Amino acid sequence: MHFTSEQRLDDGVIEREFTLGEIPGTLWTPGSASASTPAPLILLGHPGGLDKMYPRLVGRARHCAADGFATATIELPGSGDRPRSAAAEAARADLRRALQAGEPVGEDIVDRLVLPLVEKAVPEWQAALDALLSLPAIGGPVGYSGGVISIGTRLSVVEPRISAAVLFAGSFVPRALFEEARQVTIPLHVLLQWDDEGNDRQQALDLFDAFGSKEKTLHANMGGHTGVPQFAGDAAAQFFARHLK
Amino acid sequence: MHFTSEQRLDDGVIEREFTLGEIPGTLWTPGSASASTPAPLILLGHPGGLDKMYPRLVGRARHCAADGFATATIELPGSGDRPRSAAAEAARADLRRALQAGEPVGEDIVDRLVLPLVEKAVPEWQAALDALLSLPAIGGPVGYSGGVISIGTRLSVVEPRISAAVLFAGSFVPRALFEEARQVTIPLHVLLQWDDEGNDRQQALDLFDAFGSKEKTLHANMGGHTGVPQFAGDAAAQFFARHLK
Repeated sequence: MHFTSEQRLDDGVIEREFTLGEIPGTLWTPGSASASTPAPLILLGHPGGLDKMYPRLVGRARHCAADGFATATIELPGSGDRPRSAAAEAARADLRRALQAGEPVGEDIVDRLVLPLVEKAVPEWQAALDALLSLPAIGGPVGYSGGVISIGTRLSVVEPRISAAVLFAGSFVPRALFEEARQVTIPLHVLLQWDDEGNDRQQALDLFDAFGSKEKTLHANMGGHTGVPQFAGDAAAQFFARHLK
Repeated sequence: MHFTSEQRLDDGVIEREFTLGEIPGTLWTPGSASASTPAPLILLGHPGGLDKMYPRLVGRARHCAADGFATATIELPGSGDRPRSAAAEAARADLRRALQAGEPVGEDIVDRLVLPLVEKAVPEWQAALDALLSLPAIGGPVGYSGGVISIGTRLSVVEPRISAAVLFAGSFVPRALFEEARQVTIPLHVLLQWDDEGNDRQQALDLFDAFGSKEKTLHANMGGHTGVPQFAGDAAAQFFARHLK
């Protein structure tokens, strides 16, 4: 992990860009975090494209920092400046075509788009976690927050250092992930936008039902994919405060 | 409205029992409420039987009082010491029989049980509201919190003094109420226990979908009918703090 830039934001949050091999990422730490008082960490999931997502990511990072959390994110495979996969691009084009035609999105499209992404991204998040937890200002426990919900689901199963997750049900989920969902046991807080244009509501409810966690909460709100209300963000922050402190 | 008893609880909350005609009820006011600083009011809905429900009702009342709210409840028609309706008792027996046999609960049973209850209870809650809002320690705005969700739905449509509602999706809902749900426009916070033994989950999700409110939130949690977790109660309190203050 090599830090490539560092700046202090107006609220005292320290923002550092880094690379982990070929993968770019960003780490935000509260001004108060130090080797003597390391901050618990929340991994910020997103749909890919760090530059485009920056305003929303930094907003989430500031909110978390105000609650005493460090946050970090990395670019997804095939997004931003990372090399594209021809197969994923073809699957994405098929998905777009189906959505524009108002057709149901076939399982094969979802599988081709999401399964290779999960396969590749999850070990990268784990490598990032290795590097991040070796920093003196970062302590445990660790949470995962956001989409892609299939990545968050797999991480919650295979990564024992993640103790709680806020999962955003805003993307299509391969059937295979439903089986994995049953193996999740950490506390979950699932966000669903009831009228999300690029999401299958019934599938999201089925996935919520499938999670094996004894403590799981679904918060459904009105509006489209990007319309998560401020109070829903506050509730997610309270979930992490309950479980990561 | 005649007050029949008054006591100050250990946290300073004043609990007063009253009768409104033949209907018994209870009013809780924060120790700080007075004619010069009247408290906003939350009506506490429940499934009937004030005596049996008292421990849970007073718990909710204390929680609300700590947030500065007065709360009040009245006995439901056919519950507690109020005269039974033979038709409602017959419907209740049919419901119990269907549930015990693991059979689907027919629409006719739900209609016979719930529709007359809504017809009778809603004007009683409105009469209670008239009396309560005439007390100097009680101000507006007013919220409704709890079940019976069909009563809360009808009240939200017909009673303009209610500005926000926390509705507990824990009872069967007549089809006719789904049409009324579309007419609800106030902010709603709907609580659903995912594995509620006496509730139809899909029907609850359909009812949530039907509500016409622009701001509506569904909070689904694990566990049975009475297992609403503490943090879900806190979230409902925050909803009222946002809308009634």
